Amino acid sequence: MQNTDLKIFNTLTRTKEVFKPVNPPFVGMYVCGPTVYNHVHLGNCRTFISFDIVYRYLLHLGYKVRYVRNITDVGHLVNEEEMTGEDRIGKMARIEKLEPMEIVQRYTNGFHDVMKQFNALPPSIEPTATGHIVEQINMVQAILDNGYGYVSNGSVYFDTLKYAKNHKEFGRLSGKIMDDLQVETRDLKGQSEKRHPADFAIWMKAQPEHIMRWNSPWSVGFPGWHLECSVMSTRYLGDKFDIHGGGMDLQFPHHENEIAQNIGACGHAPVNYWMHTNMLTVNGTKMSKSLNNSVLPGEMFTGENDVLAKAYDPMVVRFFMLQTHYSSTLDFSDEALQAGEKGFRRLMEGYKTLQSLQHKNGKVEESEDQAVTEECQACYEHMNDDFSTPQALAVLFGLVTRVNTYKDKGGVVSSISKETFDRLNKVFRDFIEDIFGLKEEEGADEEVVDGLMQLIIDIRQSSREKKDWDTSDKIRAVLKELEIQLKDGKDGTSWTKA
Amino acid sequence: MQNTDLKIFNTLTRTKEVFKPVNPPFVGMYVCGPTVYNHVHLGNCRTFISFDIVYRYLLHLGYKVRYVRNITDVGHLVNEEEMTGEDRIGKMARIEKLEPMEIVQRYTNGFHDVMKQFNALPPSIEPTATGHIVEQINMVQAILDNGYGYVSNGSVYFDTLKYAKNHKEFGRLSGKIMDDLQVETRDLKGQSEKRHPADFAIWMKAQPEHIMRWNSPWSVGFPGWHLECSVMSTRYLGDKFDIHGGGMDLQFPHHENEIAQNIGACGHAPVNYWMHTNMLTVNGTKMSKSLNNSVLPGEMFTGENDVLAKAYDPMVVRFFMLQTHYSSTLDFSDEALQAGEKGFRRLMEGYKTLQSLQHKNGKVEESEDQAVTEECQACYEHMNDDFSTPQALAVLFGLVTRVNTYKDKGGVVSSISKETFDRLNKVFRDFIEDIFGLKEEEGADEEVVDGLMQLIIDIRQSSREKKDWDTSDKIRAVLKELEIQLKDGKDGTSWTKA
Repeated sequence: MQNTDLKIFNTLTRTKEVFKPVNPPFVGMYVCGPTVYNHVHLGNCRTFISFDIVYRYLLHLGYKVRYVRNITDVGHLVNEEEMTGEDRIGKMARIEKLEPMEIVQRYTNGFHDVMKQFNALPPSIEPTATGHIVEQINMVQAILDNGYGYVSNGSVYFDTLKYAKNHKEFGRLSGKIMDDLQVETRDLKGQSEKRHPADFAIWMKAQPEHIMRWNSPWSVGFPGWHLECSVMSTRYLGDKFDIHGGGMDLQFPHHENEIAQNIGACGHAPVNYWMHTNMLTVNGTKMSKSLNNSVLPGEMFTGENDVLAKAYDPMVVRFFMLQTHYSSTLDFSDEALQAGEKGFRRLMEGYKTLQSLQHKNGKVEESEDQAVTEECQACYEHMNDDFSTPQALAVLFGLVTRVNTYKDKGGVVSSISKETFDRLNKVFRDFIEDIFGLKEEEGADEEVVDGLMQLIIDIRQSSREKKDWDTSDKIRAVLKELEIQLKDGKDGTSWTKA
Repeated sequence: MQNTDLKIFNTLTRTKEVFKPVNPPFVGMYVCGPTVYNHVHLGNCRTFISFDIVYRYLLHLGYKVRYVRNITDVGHLVNEEEMTGEDRIGKMARIEKLEPMEIVQRYTNGFHDVMKQFNALPPSIEPTATGHIVEQINMVQAILDNGYGYVSNGSVYFDTLKYAKNHKEFGRLSGKIMDDLQVETRDLKGQSEKRHPADFAIWMKAQPEHIMRWNSPWSVGFPGWHLECSVMSTRYLGDKFDIHGGGMDLQFPHHENEIAQNIGACGHAPVNYWMHTNMLTVNGTKMSKSLNNSVLPGEMFTGENDVLAKAYDPMVVRFFMLQTHYSSTLDFSDEALQAGEKGFRRLMEGYKTLQSLQHKNGKVEESEDQAVTEECQACYEHMNDDFSTPQALAVLFGLVTRVNTYKDKGGVVSSISKETFDRLNKVFRDFIEDIFGLKEEEGADEEVVDGLMQLIIDIRQSSREKKDWDTSDKIRAVLKELEIQLKDGKDGTSWTKA
């Protein structure tokens, strides 16, 4: 298999393109990470899991990938205590005040926990916006030096009109024309300071109520929202790198402005392949607080949300996401998740069954051997086709059916060659472990222990009734060894583990 | 119990002092965290676990603690490729070069994993040195403005002679006098730029081979080693905060210079209580690579190190550390760890046993009731005595003996009052769960499943021999339900779980 077989749908050109890294075997990939002022959103998780698959597949292909995913830890948090003027006592005591970095730490930890539960590989570098203030100031200066920014009342704005005049590609990523580009109205405050409504802040002078603020040549302030990704991506991947990803809601204005900033600072476009993941819905509608259908990842794992009938293991949710291509809308519903759970278990059981099969040289059925070979190959081909996980999964399920047939026929496989049998094993290992990153559900052991203990308690009961003291003595001895205590009560026998 | 009962040994005064926070109920605590250019050292783990206990106990006392532990992610890494001049091709391609932040990320992740295994609570804020370059530049400027620094060839040095003249406490923390203070020779290169050998760099001009570098008013360079902690502690805790901790090897020069920097910048000492943890030895000698007796935390958990006879659960290691006071040397040996393992299990079993006891009103034995009450109280008193975990543990073990006696007498407790019985339960919960942060060993389930399955396989075998089909049918049905498959072979029966 040639690495150059991989095709990626590039949002910039709206075509599937053969993937050619700038400096093979190195690949640089940047993904816009979470804003850590709240719990990570399930939709964000979908994006990060999608790019985890991209990362894993590139690694599988043998690329040396530097995967950078940022943490947005600087926002517009204001000190409400100070604003209301109610707490003057604490003014000298920094420790009594709201500290944004405490919030940042809590939600960063929570985000990492969730990503770990989803078995997503950690990125190579996870830079924070506040960790790159000097570099952001440098880029603002470079944009000013190149004539694409202007200072207004201590803030610095990107001059979109001038940029659009020299760079016709402005709007290309999002498919917007200059008129559309005026709709960015996040920063109402700055409208009067701007020369054009589409201009956006690259450095903001801090209002008195802003807590996070740094010295700069223009004002004590903070970097504009779009700047950090321009800075951190090129800081770690160079000013021309391979893949930039994110949710499709970031295409405009975030990514459009990112491109403008990079070109404004260094004269050329930063990214060769732009990838965008599609949105997530719940029972067919957008997830939103006002619709009361928001589900946090943690709630999904515990089932503590009215939208859900039950808890779903992180691995089930991950598998469920892989059943839909990253570029399509993904709908969460109990029904679909429960079907996903069945599918996940069928796949994992198939893998276990495969590992229990034995190959024996015998009469090879050529047509079957060829079919298995082709199906194995097809899995990789589907991944090469813009990471089509649902199609690769479909083929894997066909192979699960074959595996189950081999088992039903006695577990010894002779109808395919040893080579093909080995390839079949490799495909399952490659896909389940390396590429899809699936593993056994958590807490499985606990359920098993409960089930086995109930069985043993029942056997103990019946052996006592039959006066089969050998068996009940043996049970007592083994349980003692395992430090398990039985307690006979009115409502039957319970057990505890020391 | 009064919070003011807590006494802390203050390195600065070399006495145990009553703990009085600057702004109760708030407490600010800063601990020097790891340098993430390598695996975290077991000695560091001891320090962090010691301060985890301090943190947990302060929380238990009802304080609102902001616990800041930094990550040192800027060091003196040089780009060897560039130095040897062998790789000119890659010069334009940043991605092919050594990226310090990739190393930082890997070891930060590893550090977090280890801390989680040790069940250490995450700090409230975990700031990085590279994330506070602007603030460090600000402090260098403040020190210069106050006349305690000088610029020499693009680097900035702290003027220790001038500082010592105005501030007689220089050397107080480490007990060193000015002559001793000259021994800091880490930075040989800067000797010619210094006015006095004890002077230390607060900003270093970067040599060409240094990769991590930032713009500053003095040079493109990087902050001095000691500066980050002065900056990050006061950034998040205010310029006068309660507790500063670290390993005792940091007393000099790191903490001594930290104090000098803070006083140099803002005119007064930053910290009220300095706490230092003692060192860790292995089989009586210092752990070092040259002695080939280094043990990584991960190796301790897997047993994959020749120094160890077996693996130790993180909870066993944590418990083992608590058996020695943080201010004493702690020696790791297989013998001591195995004793620790027994002790840990005895304590946890005692806790389980206590939970199985029932109280019944009856004749209270006054002397016993009073003894239990006093022993419960003693646990907290020992913690109030500079966090004496070994003494608190000793009392807890006395209580375990009592608990086991209650169990031997039938598990129903009448000889102490309900109030005392409840207090006994509270002490165990407080100490084991909240203060000591101990929990069941990991992987325990797996061993149990193996043991139970072996028992079930044996029962199945004997029931077949006895033609007890009821039992063997029941076993078959339950195992099928649990998706466990048995496989009868020449060497007996094995099992797999789907």
